[in-house]
Amino acid sequence: MTSPNTQSAATRKPVLGIGMVGYAFMGAVHSQGWRTAGRAFDLPLEPQLTAVCGRNEQAARAAADRLGWASAETDWRELIARDDIHLVDICTPGDSHAEIAVAALDAGKHVLCEKPLANTVAEAEAMVAAAARNPGRIAMVGFNYRRTPAISLAQALIGAGRLGTLRHIRLTYLQDWLVDPDFPLTWRLRRETAGSGALGDLGSHIVDLAQFLTGEQVIGVTGQTETFVPERPLTPGLGGDRGQVTVDDAALFTGRFPSGALASFEASRFAHGRKNALRFEVNGERGSLAFDLERLNELHFFDGSAPAPEAGFRRILVTEPEHPYLAGWWPPGHGLGYEHTFVHQARDLVHAIADGTQPSPSFADGLQVQRVLAAVEESASKDSTYTPVFTTDHE
Amino acid sequence: MTSPNTQSAATRKPVLGIGMVGYAFMGAVHSQGWRTAGRAFDLPLEPQLTAVCGRNEQAARAAADRLGWASAETDWRELIARDDIHLVDICTPGDSHAEIAVAALDAGKHVLCEKPLANTVAEAEAMVAAAARNPGRIAMVGFNYRRTPAISLAQALIGAGRLGTLRHIRLTYLQDWLVDPDFPLTWRLRRETAGSGALGDLGSHIVDLAQFLTGEQVIGVTGQTETFVPERPLTPGLGGDRGQVTVDDAALFTGRFPSGALASFEASRFAHGRKNALRFEVNGERGSLAFDLERLNELHFFDGSAPAPEAGFRRILVTEPEHPYLAGWWPPGHGLGYEHTFVHQARDLVHAIADGTQPSPSFADGLQVQRVLAAVEESASKDSTYTPVFTTDHE
Amino acid sequence: MTSPNTQSAATRKPVLGIGMVGYAFMGAVHSQGWRTAGRAFDLPLEPQLTAVCGRNEQAARAAADRLGWASAETDWRELIARDDIHLVDICTPGDSHAEIAVAALDAGKHVLCEKPLANTVAEAEAMVAAAARNPGRIAMVGFNYRRTPAISLAQALIGAGRLGTLRHIRLTYLQDWLVDPDFPLTWRLRRETAGSGALGDLGSHIVDLAQFLTGEQVIGVTGQTETFVPERPLTPGLGGDRGQVTVDDAALFTGRFPSGALASFEASRFAHGRKNALRFEVNGERGSLAFDLERLNELHFFDGSAPAPEAGFRRILVTEPEHPYLAGWWPPGHGLGYEHTFVHQARDLVHAIADGTQPSPSFADGLQVQRVLAAVEESASKDSTYTPVFTTDHE
Amino acid sequence: MTSPNTQSAATRKPVLGIGMVGYAFMGAVHSQGWRTAGRAFDLPLEPQLTAVCGRNEQAARAAADRLGWASAETDWRELIARDDIHLVDICTPGDSHAEIAVAALDAGKHVLCEKPLANTVAEAEAMVAAAARNPGRIAMVGFNYRRTPAISLAQALIGAGRLGTLRHIRLTYLQDWLVDPDFPLTWRLRRETAGSGALGDLGSHIVDLAQFLTGEQVIGVTGQTETFVPERPLTPGLGGDRGQVTVDDAALFTGRFPSGALASFEASRFAHGRKNALRFEVNGERGSLAFDLERLNELHFFDGSAPAPEAGFRRILVTEPEHPYLAGWWPPGHGLGYEHTFVHQARDLVHAIADGTQPSPSFADGLQVQRVLAAVEESASKDSTYTPVFTTDHE
Repeated sequence: MTSPNTQSAATRKPVLGIGMVGYAFMGAVHSQGWRTAGRAFDLPLEPQLTAVCGRNEQAARAAADRLGWASAETDWRELIARDDIHLVDICTPGDSHAEIAVAALDAGKHVLCEKPLANTVAEAEAMVAAAARNPGRIAMVGFNYRRTPAISLAQALIGAGRLGTLRHIRLTYLQDWLVDPDFPLTWRLRRETAGSGALGDLGSHIVDLAQFLTGEQVIGVTGQTETFVPERPLTPGLGGDRGQVTVDDAALFTGRFPSGALASFEASRFAHGRKNALRFEVNGERGSLAFDLERLNELHFFDGSAPAPEAGFRRILVTEPEHPYLAGWWPPGHGLGYEHTFVHQARDLVHAIADGTQPSPSFADGLQVQRVLAAVEESASKDSTYTPVFTTDHE
Repeated sequence: MTSPNTQSAATRKPVLGIGMVGYAFMGAVHSQGWRTAGRAFDLPLEPQLTAVCGRNEQAARAAADRLGWASAETDWRELIARDDIHLVDICTPGDSHAEIAVAALDAGKHVLCEKPLANTVAEAEAMVAAAARNPGRIAMVGFNYRRTPAISLAQALIGAGRLGTLRHIRLTYLQDWLVDPDFPLTWRLRRETAGSGALGDLGSHIVDLAQFLTGEQVIGVTGQTETFVPERPLTPGLGGDRGQVTVDDAALFTGRFPSGALASFEASRFAHGRKNALRFEVNGERGSLAFDLERLNELHFFDGSAPAPEAGFRRILVTEPEHPYLAGWWPPGHGLGYEHTFVHQARDLVHAIADGTQPSPSFADGLQVQRVLAAVEESASKDSTYTPVFTTDHE
Repeated sequence: MTSPNTQSAATRKPVLGIGMVGYAFMGAVHSQGWRTAGRAFDLPLEPQLTAVCGRNEQAARAAADRLGWASAETDWRELIARDDIHLVDICTPGDSHAEIAVAALDAGKHVLCEKPLANTVAEAEAMVAAAARNPGRIAMVGFNYRRTPAISLAQALIGAGRLGTLRHIRLTYLQDWLVDPDFPLTWRLRRETAGSGALGDLGSHIVDLAQFLTGEQVIGVTGQTETFVPERPLTPGLGGDRGQVTVDDAALFTGRFPSGALASFEASRFAHGRKNALRFEVNGERGSLAFDLERLNELHFFDGSAPAPEAGFRRILVTEPEHPYLAGWWPPGHGLGYEHTFVHQARDLVHAIADGTQPSPSFADGLQVQRVLAAVEESASKDSTYTPVFTTDHE
Repeated sequence: MTSPNTQSAATRKPVLGIGMVGYAFMGAVHSQGWRTAGRAFDLPLEPQLTAVCGRNEQAARAAADRLGWASAETDWRELIARDDIHLVDICTPGDSHAEIAVAALDAGKHVLCEKPLANTVAEAEAMVAAAARNPGRIAMVGFNYRRTPAISLAQALIGAGRLGTLRHIRLTYLQDWLVDPDFPLTWRLRRETAGSGALGDLGSHIVDLAQFLTGEQVIGVTGQTETFVPERPLTPGLGGDRGQVTVDDAALFTGRFPSGALASFEASRFAHGRKNALRFEVNGERGSLAFDLERLNELHFFDGSAPAPEAGFRRILVTEPEHPYLAGWWPPGHGLGYEHTFVHQARDLVHAIADGTQPSPSFADGLQVQRVLAAVEESASKDSTYTPVFTTDHE
């Protein structure tokens, strides 16, 4: 159990000491989230960037300076052991998520874990179990896109019944950083570190969003995966040995919801020109919604209750003070960016910790996504045959 | 006076014999309008493509065959004299509009005259006078864009008060066919044939639309014009003599309406990449509208009465059966093109002739546009000083 | 065998006498195509709207007058028997395609048959056999969207290798006319007349386009179909008996190409707000293309050979004279509409007849689409298991 | 002269102590800029949020806590006097800019001053003079939009000659927060505090951008201004006294550049549905550019050197590492927001201070904008007559 929070001298708020493991892309954007959340929003606790952790001491030290962390650690077990760390923020590749998260929870720390929750269903189950046996600790998985204001608004409109009975949800998450067959074989292209390829990295986001938006769980899937470029250079640059790509380059799958709604999913790193194209459209009996992450301040809403000659997809600029999270930001029309989803994630997590309530998405939500991904891989291995998603009752 | 209409054998409807003067671009698209109007809409008269007229006999004959006209004439006076011609459709350059239109009206023919109505205010006044002294004849000026379904819908929404008090209307009509300084000196670049340049050709359309949409007349303007490339080759191709461009390449102007609304206008043939970009936006106290001719099946409507978190410009696909002119066409979402505005123009003109009611835009509407253009030129010649638009009462 | 073509008096071109069976939506737009093709393009034969055929004499007569056909027939067998009919244009529901087409071909007529080619693979095979045993007759299936200029341009760019090796093609065709559960049970919702639902009506278009664009045939599929509203009113209006919907409301499927490219397809009549949203995106190693039928004058092209800081999807306004079919139309930026695809279809078919060359899409192409659809239905009935598409050699 | 900078303990970089005057909207976003700049970019100095200043002690103290400033002051003169303040950041209304800036420069501080530089030309001239007599001090005016990556890229493309000779630039800056006639009479609607209305607030941005993008100064203007709602409530809510609005609600003007290019400008707070619509389009002999601040991660570029059938406005997602400022941020497609322009402004200003080079936009640039605005007001008062912009040589 962690020691009682000290008080911030400046704000006289209790301090929430954060220890972050990993400092690459995700570490950088998490840092920006922690640094900013208390400036944009009035938080019950004051997040402090207490320590960052990485195996290489010099690199960890440099990251601490660059990203604004007060200290650096080289062993995540020591980070967890520190009394001034109340929350462990896991930004490492998926193969280490389970070990760190379970240890942190059992040590009495709150945990924020990057997505996907784990590389396997078994690891994810262990993490859910650790969260369950530490009910006083908060455990959250970092599906940050839920906290895009436009996506949060979409969820609210669906939740309020504005689309009526849902019929379709189609989601794509398209990137293009692998189109060059000489792009090297990084950790993201090896099964042992990444678990899967586009499926886990991109597909996990859109599975989570499909479930978040509809409020339902995928009950079965059909899937297929493909590796377009089976071998890649072991090191950047021309020539040299090539190694086997052991994850998928793209995954196409469909899902069914209990309500009868149909979902289609496509995740790829081979969609030339699409840089971060997470797009979805939801069609219901009373209306539709459409979104594109490359224009993240916009939500397109077709309200079927309008008379036909006036009906149309309306482009809502999600920057009004009444919109989710916008009260903390700028006047209408002054848009937000990608990193703000992490500020919002930090904000909501701090509130959850202060209130002692489990936030969403929980580890159980993360496990459910993992089960869908596992079912997709199973279906893909069985000629795309429809494969139920196994769900236990404990969630 | 023309002889009584004969009956069509097939449809047993009275025939409306059309004589068209000119057979270039405008002649081709007018032909398509006349040929199609009675197939898409149930008309009270059956338009017949009776004769096309052009100075060169062989070319006129070829045009008749290609465009589907039953006969060819080489002298427009003889065309007017024919008993089987009930409507004269003038598709020539602006310098001949007045002479032909006045003669046709005085000979008892109905007249459709391409825009701009004339090259000068004096000519336009003579045409209005001819229409006035022949009240049984229908006279219409071809501002075809009014009959774009989306623009017609925009006018209806404004007319119904959906935008409330108007504040702004801004219109641009941008093309780029003169960006190459070696494009040759055609009739459109000589004042004696074209009257003016972008101002008359493109500016006339947006002045007409501004007045059509607001239901008001421009009462004063400030303007400036520019000729970016003052000399051009007399003949296509490299080398050779160059002649003086005697019209404007671009015109920028503003206008005031009696209601206090402000208009801004920009017409140019030097907007690289803009092929036919007639765009407008209207802002009122209760809402706004936006349109782009390059996406002519869409109207964007901001309804200010929606709650702020749900408000947004909605993209109305103007292809519903309830939309203007759409009952004659295809199912929702099956869009129309540029030429359909001419089919609608033909349809409305046939109804006007059958009903004996003057259609809009009338010659007086065309004259009013001409007066605005003249005021712009006057303002431009006087350091852009605000210049009232002179309007008589007879309109 | 049909008698030698007579000559048109006006144009001195040989006449191509057309007999059209059916005069509903498809009949109307085919009529517009036949009427216009010879006016926009210089054709080797002059199409004449000789006779329209429908079972109800009065209705057929009225359709002839309205749509501009010289005569009406009530028995398609008599239509086929007429010497002045050289081409039979079949615009009826799918259940009568095979019988009419086979009879027409065997009677020595050329045939244009609306899509989908037939309701079953067996019927389609019979039609292909009839075409094969009448090699002097031209047989074409009406996948009109191939002749959208932007789609034709897309195919040309892919054919020229501008996208390199293809990775993905994703296509959706979304409409929304069934969202109201009280929409009545029309012929399109009964298996005996329509064969299938969204799958055959909409899915056939996108399967054809996928094969047309890639130049490859789908070799296997996984699929699922859904009927959201299983019973509908037998007659329009409230109350009354309801009958069983025996076709799909939506179909989701994926396909594989010999090259390794993956295709995803979604066809639905339940996508609220999407009126005629045929959209596709093709991703290749060197670039990408995107298209939306609701903005049919545009093609979006990502040219991966541009330097990264300047690369982007460029919106090509497909209205330049160099673009497919555009030489016959208006200046740049003056867009076309839905119906023009039928004008282009008529143009190309007339050329094929004059040249004696089989046009594309042939009956064999239509059969191939039918086989893909059949495989989708088979897969859907077998838990979406991957199902090869059977292809014989005779195509 | 300020004392030598101390060193940061953590980064061992010299500290740049910042004193900010004002803490409303602009103060909040500047704070975010200062806090973040050193985390995203490797800066030669470490900016420290040393003190914030406001007249009300309690409010200033609260702002310091909320926005992260180490201390609070209530008198800007005392702030300037502090040795640990090296840069004074002026975020107050325009009527106090000159006094604070002049005093700060003369006290040896660097100055960042929000736009517009001042409320009058005379004040702006005094500020330029103060900058000139303190050549060792850096003075910058806060036209932050120049540092939007897409706008910076646009300037680079124009500067590299990619558009060739410029013909047109048209800019609008449209907002809608005054459409409600009962919106109260705030300081922004009074001449004595705000100087002008939409003209100074919004128009100053687009004048600066027009000059920044073209690399030219506006040499003359024609203008008109309008106040649509002349009286407004003195306090929010219904009823109560109303006072006179003494600034413009909208301003329309045109400008000429030495090269012959024409500019059109429109600034309004009455464009319903447009929240922060700063849009521009630049047309040159070789190409065009278009931008919309509501989609600030995109630049649209028409490259006229492409073959016509492949040419089109390409949507460049300005998120590549090679793009201006992007090296400090996230992977391609992970967009930035409004506030990042202030981070970039802070970054560039810190570099300028470290290097001892005057950054752009300088106070002289701000004065030049002020002169254009003054000429617009003069033209508007003289029936829009063309009015030269007076420029001295000292810039």
